[in-house]
Amino acid sequence: MTEKTIKVGIVGGTGYTGVELLRLLAQHPHCELRAITSRKEAGMPVAEMFPNLRGRVSLRFSEPAASGLDQCDVVFFATPNGVAMQEARVLVDAGVKVIDLAADFRIRDVAVWEQYYKMKHACPELVAEAVYALPEINRAEIKKARVIANPGCYPTAVQLGFLPLIEAGCVDVGHLIADAKSGVSGAGRKAETHILHAEAADNFKAYGVGTHRHQPEIAQGLVRAAGKPVGLVFVPHLTPMIRGIHATLYARLTDSAKASMTASGLQALYEKRYAGEAFVDVMPAGSHPETRSVRGANQCRIAVHQPQGGDTVVVLSVIDNLVKGAAGQAVQNMNILFGLAEDTGLTQVALLP
Amino acid sequence: MTEKTIKVGIVGGTGYTGVELLRLLAQHPHCELRAITSRKEAGMPVAEMFPNLRGRVSLRFSEPAASGLDQCDVVFFATPNGVAMQEARVLVDAGVKVIDLAADFRIRDVAVWEQYYKMKHACPELVAEAVYALPEINRAEIKKARVIANPGCYPTAVQLGFLPLIEAGCVDVGHLIADAKSGVSGAGRKAETHILHAEAADNFKAYGVGTHRHQPEIAQGLVRAAGKPVGLVFVPHLTPMIRGIHATLYARLTDSAKASMTASGLQALYEKRYAGEAFVDVMPAGSHPETRSVRGANQCRIAVHQPQGGDTVVVLSVIDNLVKGAAGQAVQNMNILFGLAEDTGLTQVALLP
Amino acid sequence: MTEKTIKVGIVGGTGYTGVELLRLLAQHPHCELRAITSRKEAGMPVAEMFPNLRGRVSLRFSEPAASGLDQCDVVFFATPNGVAMQEARVLVDAGVKVIDLAADFRIRDVAVWEQYYKMKHACPELVAEAVYALPEINRAEIKKARVIANPGCYPTAVQLGFLPLIEAGCVDVGHLIADAKSGVSGAGRKAETHILHAEAADNFKAYGVGTHRHQPEIAQGLVRAAGKPVGLVFVPHLTPMIRGIHATLYARLTDSAKASMTASGLQALYEKRYAGEAFVDVMPAGSHPETRSVRGANQCRIAVHQPQGGDTVVVLSVIDNLVKGAAGQAVQNMNILFGLAEDTGLTQVALLP
Amino acid sequence: MTEKTIKVGIVGGTGYTGVELLRLLAQHPHCELRAITSRKEAGMPVAEMFPNLRGRVSLRFSEPAASGLDQCDVVFFATPNGVAMQEARVLVDAGVKVIDLAADFRIRDVAVWEQYYKMKHACPELVAEAVYALPEINRAEIKKARVIANPGCYPTAVQLGFLPLIEAGCVDVGHLIADAKSGVSGAGRKAETHILHAEAADNFKAYGVGTHRHQPEIAQGLVRAAGKPVGLVFVPHLTPMIRGIHATLYARLTDSAKASMTASGLQALYEKRYAGEAFVDVMPAGSHPETRSVRGANQCRIAVHQPQGGDTVVVLSVIDNLVKGAAGQAVQNMNILFGLAEDTGLTQVALLP
Repeated sequence: MTEKTIKVGIVGGTGYTGVELLRLLAQHPHCELRAITSRKEAGMPVAEMFPNLRGRVSLRFSEPAASGLDQCDVVFFATPNGVAMQEARVLVDAGVKVIDLAADFRIRDVAVWEQYYKMKHACPELVAEAVYALPEINRAEIKKARVIANPGCYPTAVQLGFLPLIEAGCVDVGHLIADAKSGVSGAGRKAETHILHAEAADNFKAYGVGTHRHQPEIAQGLVRAAGKPVGLVFVPHLTPMIRGIHATLYARLTDSAKASMTASGLQALYEKRYAGEAFVDVMPAGSHPETRSVRGANQCRIAVHQPQGGDTVVVLSVIDNLVKGAAGQAVQNMNILFGLAEDTGLTQVALLP
Repeated sequence: MTEKTIKVGIVGGTGYTGVELLRLLAQHPHCELRAITSRKEAGMPVAEMFPNLRGRVSLRFSEPAASGLDQCDVVFFATPNGVAMQEARVLVDAGVKVIDLAADFRIRDVAVWEQYYKMKHACPELVAEAVYALPEINRAEIKKARVIANPGCYPTAVQLGFLPLIEAGCVDVGHLIADAKSGVSGAGRKAETHILHAEAADNFKAYGVGTHRHQPEIAQGLVRAAGKPVGLVFVPHLTPMIRGIHATLYARLTDSAKASMTASGLQALYEKRYAGEAFVDVMPAGSHPETRSVRGANQCRIAVHQPQGGDTVVVLSVIDNLVKGAAGQAVQNMNILFGLAEDTGLTQVALLP
Repeated sequence: MTEKTIKVGIVGGTGYTGVELLRLLAQHPHCELRAITSRKEAGMPVAEMFPNLRGRVSLRFSEPAASGLDQCDVVFFATPNGVAMQEARVLVDAGVKVIDLAADFRIRDVAVWEQYYKMKHACPELVAEAVYALPEINRAEIKKARVIANPGCYPTAVQLGFLPLIEAGCVDVGHLIADAKSGVSGAGRKAETHILHAEAADNFKAYGVGTHRHQPEIAQGLVRAAGKPVGLVFVPHLTPMIRGIHATLYARLTDSAKASMTASGLQALYEKRYAGEAFVDVMPAGSHPETRSVRGANQCRIAVHQPQGGDTVVVLSVIDNLVKGAAGQAVQNMNILFGLAEDTGLTQVALLP
Repeated sequence: MTEKTIKVGIVGGTGYTGVELLRLLAQHPHCELRAITSRKEAGMPVAEMFPNLRGRVSLRFSEPAASGLDQCDVVFFATPNGVAMQEARVLVDAGVKVIDLAADFRIRDVAVWEQYYKMKHACPELVAEAVYALPEINRAEIKKARVIANPGCYPTAVQLGFLPLIEAGCVDVGHLIADAKSGVSGAGRKAETHILHAEAADNFKAYGVGTHRHQPEIAQGLVRAAGKPVGLVFVPHLTPMIRGIHATLYARLTDSAKASMTASGLQALYEKRYAGEAFVDVMPAGSHPETRSVRGANQCRIAVHQPQGGDTVVVLSVIDNLVKGAAGQAVQNMNILFGLAEDTGLTQVALLP
């Protein structure tokens, strides 16, 4: 497969997932970037907007219509919610693989999607077909997909953290708590007051308690793993850093698990679950993963704790929201789709300090 | 009482609680700062170490022995743990009120204290006498105290957040969760690698899961409020900001409360509990308090949520760890001790942005 | 004068200079805040937008027309450039003192103003009358003014830093260099991409080299002090902090000064120039003032250096851009206008850490 | 050359230049990391101290004596100043190439070195032999060197910025000004109070005016380029970010240059000087390079300005202090030494945001 070159298009590359995709694809040995579209910035060299790409990406933003996306092997949508559902159909019909980094194809229940995203879904039949692509759960399905719903950032960190417990059936899935903290890039590259440096720096706050759009996405994944309804309280927070998500997860052991499960049993459960996974690192017992340990890397690091030997399990899960939480996972999914080694182009070491 | 001037001494003023005490006392209308001691820095003008005090504090650090602390009306200990317990006895016997900003007199069970603080307690009999001084619980006791144990920063934010629920008996006190986030000044002004700017900036991590010293302090306060044993999982995190604590608290409604309690009932419960409190602000329903809204101010802001109308109550509680979580609360306690209006010298408006 | 209460109005209080004015006025003993206007936010409680003001400012934003500004003693314009010039005339005619925190009345040469601010000036005759109000230069004029042009943030830091050298005639005024660094709040509370946290944090850049609007304002002030034309290279930079300006100034000693001037002579020159000034602090020889030493305080701290005893003088000057660089200086000017002690309501100690 | 593997040792890898070297070498296709020494941490897995290296570097810190450094092809010293001069001799005699990232071999005048570094030099004869290795000046010499003095971070940014002007002889070299700003990692991974997060965040200050150790290093390089004495005022500042240096340089055109040189002439001068350089990027006229555009990348980006068409040239030069200012440049020098393509292992794209 090494001789193959994948022809890649990107729709809407002016946001953070866009520039991050470009950073990764510029270092990917088997990709050829064919087009990156932006109606608003058509004609501007990409490297003028993102100077880190000077000398590495020579493309200009182009008009979608004139970009030859249907000649690509794969098209990434790094667009706001609601765009991919309008444009994916045509590409799929042309035999182009579609990877949507937004939320259009993530929620299988279209009514729930429409409630949370406050718009009518333009393409429910592709929702039914699309694969929610968290490789650590379902890489076999991903391999055959035509439409990839790339998971959200919080959902990636929270699901990877909870899965071993839920799959093992050892916790009360009716009362799961996910207390999650995100860097400000998670809010996107949008001109909004509340994410200005002078507002968000040296400040910490929760937001969207009880209303955040990632709640149903996470719940859907946990239900799938549990095989029954789950109760999830999800509280996201904004923390004054650029990149990174730290999810602190709380679950209570079932009565039967309480009798048998120990801290070392929990540790073994996690190590076994992720033994073959290149991008999930179960840290030694007693660890506290730091977000900077995955900065710029396609990696999730997890530690599991049982404070005071009690019945509450605490899981700490960190990712870079723009990499394993977005663009890196999208490239990982592309590698799976095209039969490449899963870590092709994804071997960057995290930047620390 | 307005004509009275309180003679104040500070032991160990080279840390962050020390400089913060100086900032507040320099603006207090009824205090006269008589001495600030530091063996290591004796002779150095305080304003040379802390240039924000130039023109406002003319004192030099002095040798403890030569500082006439026994001539003061009140002495604050802004020292590491283990100092006040050595020196308080003499001052108390000389009729000097003692306010300890460290942990020496906070835990009534000396064995627990010795286990968590890893030293032998030098003065258990003053522990028995000392008042754990969270004014919103026990200002009557504070008024009569000779030794004040000023609460810790996390314990202040967490207790003020949980108290209304626990006092009302409407939650399962056997399974309380406090997910708390602190700015880096909470670690003190110590030359340690992990709190360097290049380590702690743009990074987020949990620490001390299951082992933090504030766990027993918080638990003690919650037990007192509940009148029975409590189960508390406390997970502290380090967040890249200078000041501020954000506590996100989770409690499950009891079966009986579940039937009757609504979001507006919770809101009313909190508003009523803190109706007369100058320094606790219950925000409108649906709010998300920000740490910067209390930066530099002696204030706790609280919001209460019931996500999806479920049985888990989420409380958000913010303070400035150096003010309501340390020096400001110490001044508040001094005001109570000396019969001043509780907000004397504590009317600074938070610095935003 | 203590019994007098000044009736205050604010036009346009939704930006950072607005909230900072409110913070200071809420602590001012002789002010009564009568109205704060915002067309866009009319009806919203001020404390809802700025939660640090909860419990301290009970006013709502109001429609300008219905706000009774002409009944005030003084009206502050905390508006974008181009507003005060439209509305000041009416107020002045009604006997109301006007203090403009924007740039409308700062540049005496209207043609230069129009070139840099890219609009036609609506009220040139008030420009002629207005007083450029840097109290350390011209408090006598300020006392009698009807229209106050409150200086810009960079111009305050740079002028206070250069003045002693220029007034003493000891440097080559044809080749002055001001390398200035500002926190991000200096760009205002505007929804613009480049000042997002994820763009401006952990980043440093120059901007507006050769084109910044504060260049002519600074030059005008230096010309006035020098009594002859000056050459000024002004390079502003954006530094990842919320508040603070640090100006690093370079000037070359004239040949005659070179022969006589020493480092201690420079130190004496600065100390003498600012001997009576409450808000300018000349630090000891060899000092490096930090922006945090003035965070939240109406203070300028200055140090003067002569590296390697050479002919280049280096001056370091720091202010909080929102206080001595904007709202604090505006209150200082109000105090002068109304015959109050100049530091009334301006005795806050800087917040450190 | 692709079949060759370079055997690499690192002395003292517990600081920031150490972990950065490891990050780069872990991604270098022709290196085999043989040993990394630390007396203090011997036995600890490197990835335990630096969790970003988990799964990528399996080595443990080892005792220097038992590390077989003399069997390596090249040994990097990522040590404090004063170590390499003690240990380089033996390695050089064993035929091992030495690359010192500290300052031991940078200053050819040993007396000056001893004055600034406050210690006696242990190995003056290697100073005479060592090559000060800024590849953009002297890669031919580097190729033949046995001892490489890897330039300092400020000196790299400042020299690359000034060189075209000085080599062209168009500025007054008697009066050069370098106003430089560094992220906090430049101070190293040392437990010192002034670089704590709570001290250095949200703060800006100059330091070491007139006394910084990089002054003579920079001056030495500029003298070499000018062929005559130079006058340099160097003012370093600490800016609240982790990585990055921004040097703002000021030079006055000579009278003859003033007559002929224009902004576009300056632009052409820079573009020509660095035309063949992979790691120096001359940005388009009017640009303002940002430090984040080189974060994690071995790159220097430069822009040149002539404000108001006057006689002062302003050059803006940015690097990542840990990459082009330290570890990246060291790897670049290693590549030159061993005949590899100069960008081998150095093609990382900067992390933005």
